[in-house]
Amino acid sequence: MLIKEKLPPLFNFDALPEPTYTGNGLTDQDVISVSQFDTERLDYIFSRAGEMRELVERVGSTDLLRGRVLACLFYEPSTRTSASFISAMERLGGGVIPITQGVQFSSVSKGETLADTIRTLEQFSDVIVLRHPTVGSAQVAADYAAIPVINAGDGPGEHPTQALLDLFTIKEELGRINGLKIAMVGDLRYGRTVHSLTRLLTQYDVSLRFVSPEILRLPLTIMNQVIDAGIDVRETHDVADVIKNADVLYVTRVQKERFTDLAQYEEVKNHYEITPELMAIAKQDMVVMHPLPRVGEIHYAVDDDPRAAYFRQVRNGMYIRMALLAAVLGKA
Amino acid sequence: MLIKEKLPPLFNFDALPEPTYTGNGLTDQDVISVSQFDTERLDYIFSRAGEMRELVERVGSTDLLRGRVLACLFYEPSTRTSASFISAMERLGGGVIPITQGVQFSSVSKGETLADTIRTLEQFSDVIVLRHPTVGSAQVAADYAAIPVINAGDGPGEHPTQALLDLFTIKEELGRINGLKIAMVGDLRYGRTVHSLTRLLTQYDVSLRFVSPEILRLPLTIMNQVIDAGIDVRETHDVADVIKNADVLYVTRVQKERFTDLAQYEEVKNHYEITPELMAIAKQDMVVMHPLPRVGEIHYAVDDDPRAAYFRQVRNGMYIRMALLAAVLGKA
Amino acid sequence: MLIKEKLPPLFNFDALPEPTYTGNGLTDQDVISVSQFDTERLDYIFSRAGEMRELVERVGSTDLLRGRVLACLFYEPSTRTSASFISAMERLGGGVIPITQGVQFSSVSKGETLADTIRTLEQFSDVIVLRHPTVGSAQVAADYAAIPVINAGDGPGEHPTQALLDLFTIKEELGRINGLKIAMVGDLRYGRTVHSLTRLLTQYDVSLRFVSPEILRLPLTIMNQVIDAGIDVRETHDVADVIKNADVLYVTRVQKERFTDLAQYEEVKNHYEITPELMAIAKQDMVVMHPLPRVGEIHYAVDDDPRAAYFRQVRNGMYIRMALLAAVLGKA
Repeated sequence: MLIKEKLPPLFNFDALPEPTYTGNGLTDQDVISVSQFDTERLDYIFSRAGEMRELVERVGSTDLLRGRVLACLFYEPSTRTSASFISAMERLGGGVIPITQGVQFSSVSKGETLADTIRTLEQFSDVIVLRHPTVGSAQVAADYAAIPVINAGDGPGEHPTQALLDLFTIKEELGRINGLKIAMVGDLRYGRTVHSLTRLLTQYDVSLRFVSPEILRLPLTIMNQVIDAGIDVRETHDVADVIKNADVLYVTRVQKERFTDLAQYEEVKNHYEITPELMAIAKQDMVVMHPLPRVGEIHYAVDDDPRAAYFRQVRNGMYIRMALLAAVLGKA
Repeated sequence: MLIKEKLPPLFNFDALPEPTYTGNGLTDQDVISVSQFDTERLDYIFSRAGEMRELVERVGSTDLLRGRVLACLFYEPSTRTSASFISAMERLGGGVIPITQGVQFSSVSKGETLADTIRTLEQFSDVIVLRHPTVGSAQVAADYAAIPVINAGDGPGEHPTQALLDLFTIKEELGRINGLKIAMVGDLRYGRTVHSLTRLLTQYDVSLRFVSPEILRLPLTIMNQVIDAGIDVRETHDVADVIKNADVLYVTRVQKERFTDLAQYEEVKNHYEITPELMAIAKQDMVVMHPLPRVGEIHYAVDDDPRAAYFRQVRNGMYIRMALLAAVLGKA
Repeated sequence: MLIKEKLPPLFNFDALPEPTYTGNGLTDQDVISVSQFDTERLDYIFSRAGEMRELVERVGSTDLLRGRVLACLFYEPSTRTSASFISAMERLGGGVIPITQGVQFSSVSKGETLADTIRTLEQFSDVIVLRHPTVGSAQVAADYAAIPVINAGDGPGEHPTQALLDLFTIKEELGRINGLKIAMVGDLRYGRTVHSLTRLLTQYDVSLRFVSPEILRLPLTIMNQVIDAGIDVRETHDVADVIKNADVLYVTRVQKERFTDLAQYEEVKNHYEITPELMAIAKQDMVVMHPLPRVGEIHYAVDDDPRAAYFRQVRNGMYIRMALLAAVLGKA
């Protein structure tokens, strides 16, 4: 039996809160590249991320993004990154559409262009986080979407939220960025986290040390950016050369697959493993970082060392993503 | 150390809100087929969907379905439909159990009957949305479930929420349904969205034009329903025949796989592609719709035409599903 | 344009609720094994689970765990168990990170140790529910995590929340546990639910009957625990031997794969199927339980019998998990 008379209205909008927006320079913006972040904007995001930490530690969550929905679209699985964004959005009181596994088998992607998939998902959501294997895909998505797109990794391209959380971790752990001696260790050629973090660091007064096998040295273009920025920089083949003076040791994996000559791999790999013995000669107030996952390049015995910052680094990712989500949605 | 004395109660139910229910003819009902929707009920759902649009545009979400949980059970992936339902439920303040990928590998489905899976999930949830590859499965689920089941596509059977959002889109775009000239284009034989929408339209005073290759003509049974309803109807092989007078162009894909003679496919396919040239001779206040995903049957240059309604159509799906969820849960 | 002056704070913590914690003996504890549960703790959890039932039936959900996030990490799919935990957490007002499908393909697990995955996820969440194919993995996870870990099945090891919900169901259905005659039927050798429930029951004054084919008899170690507890116990090969006197019939599946001699399987299988004929000679106030999924070992015609408790048993799982989540997070 249907109601025949005029329906009484379901919602009384006078009683519902009206959203208010404030300017932060990121409202309604996409987050595609670290090149969008000058030191002023970095200060802003780090300040907000600090507030998010306090929020989570004190009460766990807020209603700040109530009524907002995040579409979390991962064309390749990354549990760490997607879990970080999902938790960030939930702690901000927003909703999540998790499309984090098997998207490659779905009718949305089967024969459908990325542009159409994005324009479909933006109908349901207020912000899209995209992980895609192709360089430039995040920018394509942003070009088509009317809502903010956050790049959560576009293949060998960029992964800006990782670089932000890396830099935030340095600042949180050591209280400053300027004046630090930072060593990057491992695969400096292919590691996009190293490239992005290095580009952010060229805006600061730091010393950089790059430690890698010969075939995995930092690419020319990024090395030249470092030199052009007037940074004190040096390359070496052995982590032992830098361990004594480093304030930060940013470790990445030297992948066996990169070597055509396995004998060469076996010969060099021990020069890049962080052991308790190496830590014994490092400074007492330095930090060891790693984007994770690790597969042996930091010895498990190092985990209990208070200087091992890699799990705190993971947590900082949640705070940075909370700050970014709030910022692009005009709520921070 | 366990508490030994009598436990103080965890909840003070006097302080908790008691749910209130109102009648709308859909409370506690399943949504299985378009045949459940007469014009009165359609008016009701479209009215509520309009309120949902206003809610989302003004504040994003509500607490209307707080305390209610949706089990979203997809035996085959459909990111568009599942994302639409998930966002709908979250914007209504309810919870979601997303079982949208890989359900075919799970212990729930391995050897377990659909009836048992449904009777399991209804223990955790208040409404079930089911996508299943088998015709009739939604009715089977509804027969076993004590809670409402919404059919999100049962193979070649029905997909009623798609038909509702299609019709709602026509009404929202053009302000009315009666008096319109509506052309369906493409695969009219296998396209279930065409069949369901056509069946809904037979309740209105419309003109219908069916444009398809000979081998993909509308099935006899549906054509006869149209004729029996006294609808002004005509079939043709070329979209150019109908483009000038159409108020609505509902486009679906002509799939190569349907042709045994590929030469025949190559010969006909251009007659069904919507191009800017075709749009140039169409009415200024007509709309182009498509259930998506599209693979070339609407030229990308048409996307910027204000008459291209297919992404707005996607968004309407969220409003319709919000209205349906609220209705079957007795909250609208 | 970035804000240059000092940022106004985003949150006023004075206005936000401070969490309060009360002792229940489970706060901040892991739930790994049934051996953690003495009768006092069982009484406590069952009491809280009863309150959760009332909550769900009356209003659906609460804010009790607002601000808390559950990481639901399933290395093998189990829709029933993961859906139960997800619904439990959502009804408690908390957030969920669902990692329930395809985790084996993700970068988190690829080459990463379980310890590292756990220490990563605990950065985002307040409690971890783990399903893993390897015995002992839940304890490993608990050893590394600073937050509570709940074992949702570690291969042939334990599945304590299943045993708790089984025992809770007996108590809810029959009003007591002491004095009951409980028969376990089917695969008693490999069925971990039978082992765990049996171990819990040795704390009560019950009679136990074990009904199985010879090759699927209860393992020696568990049988000895039963005998040592002074329980009235007996083994038999035919359910007909126990049906008349049983207060509880706990049925599990006799799997064809367990038999090397298929003729032997065909010969015995009918002795373990629960039929309406068998039910006709059972007590009027007995209950039939099953951990599900079933594949024929309980005839579908039994489903309408009010003594068929297996779907109510599923629902009890949600209440038990709500009680456990609230307890380990210090909120019950």
